[in-house]
Amino acid sequence: MRQPRRLSYNLVASMKIRPAKEADHAAIWNIFREVVAAGDTYALDPNMSRKDALAYWFASGTHTYVAEQPAIGVVGTYILRPNQSGGGSHVANAGFMVSARARGQGIGRAMAEHCLSEAHRLGFRAMQFNYVISTNTAAIRLWQELGFEVVGTLASAFRHPDKGYVDVHVMYRSLLEHRVRRGQRSRPIN
Amino acid sequence: MRQPRRLSYNLVASMKIRPAKEADHAAIWNIFREVVAAGDTYALDPNMSRKDALAYWFASGTHTYVAEQPAIGVVGTYILRPNQSGGGSHVANAGFMVSARARGQGIGRAMAEHCLSEAHRLGFRAMQFNYVISTNTAAIRLWQELGFEVVGTLASAFRHPDKGYVDVHVMYRSLLEHRVRRGQRSRPIN
Repeated sequence: MRQPRRLSYNLVASMKIRPAKEADHAAIWNIFREVVAAGDTYALDPNMSRKDALAYWFASGTHTYVAEQPAIGVVGTYILRPNQSGGGSHVANAGFMVSARARGQGIGRAMAEHCLSEAHRLGFRAMQFNYVISTNTAAIRLWQELGFEVVGTLASAFRHPDKGYVDVHVMYRSLLEHRVRRGQRSRPIN
Repeated sequence: MRQPRRLSYNLVASMKIRPAKEADHAAIWNIFREVVAAGDTYALDPNMSRKDALAYWFASGTHTYVAEQPAIGVVGTYILRPNQSGGGSHVANAGFMVSARARGQGIGRAMAEHCLSEAHRLGFRAMQFNYVISTNTAAIRLWQELGFEVVGTLASAFRHPDKGYVDVHVMYRSLLEHRVRRGQRSRPIN
């Protein structure tokens, strides 16, 4: 098992993760714009408008959070929502964004742990990431450390701005036990 | 290889598949309501309103079609759209609905073949079904016959109205060759 990365104690220890409010819109948009403009981690239009971005991040049924550091302000944001409606609404989906100036400090991990706790509290039975781009190795490593498994791979499903067509993973974990046990993963039937 | 099912010659031979127009809204809503109310094939709210249903089926960027039989009227409908935005917009997604009174006639297959042709014409490089419920064996068999493969399985991701929690498949095929060759499927990396 990989050791957790050393955290920047000051930044993460004093960081508060809380539900987002309207006063956070400007900070969220700054982070969102930066992440989406890079075009290498989300399948979203890099030129998405502020209005569309905030409508997406604060959509009906979506729980929106920010990670705030007192001396710095909002350094990250995440959303938690049902991945599907109707008979699929017990599976959560989440999306995470960290300000470029605050990366490598454990903020993504802190938000992900908060998110799993919130998902459990809200009664979700599993969590699914629909679209983890295979070149986003830091995210894949983090999700695996948090009990997610790659349950499927979509060949050449993402056009990376530098690397061309790359694979995309679907990642999934149950929330019914602390950690998905090895060997429990469902396998394709064909 | 499984033999194609015998078709009802009269119904399918005279059937026309064409882009939907506003005059089709009532017929589409009848089919949509019936399919979604059954709650066993789509992860949508079974009580979805007509307005929300049509907004979903005719969303911006979505191509909507109907299958029409002269003597009967609209017997099926499907949508074709990018599965993601930005760097993921070259992969298509589609959804199909057939009127209960017209099932088992090959209408789903005829619409799926039309859809693959349209997707190719529109320049999509692959097609993905995000959410094929494992109990929907007729659909799975049809997609496999049309070259799709199960690339991942989501354990207990759908709450079936009769069967409880059942698995859901992600299915995928390239559109760059006539048929996905055996053995080319991407496999999970973990």
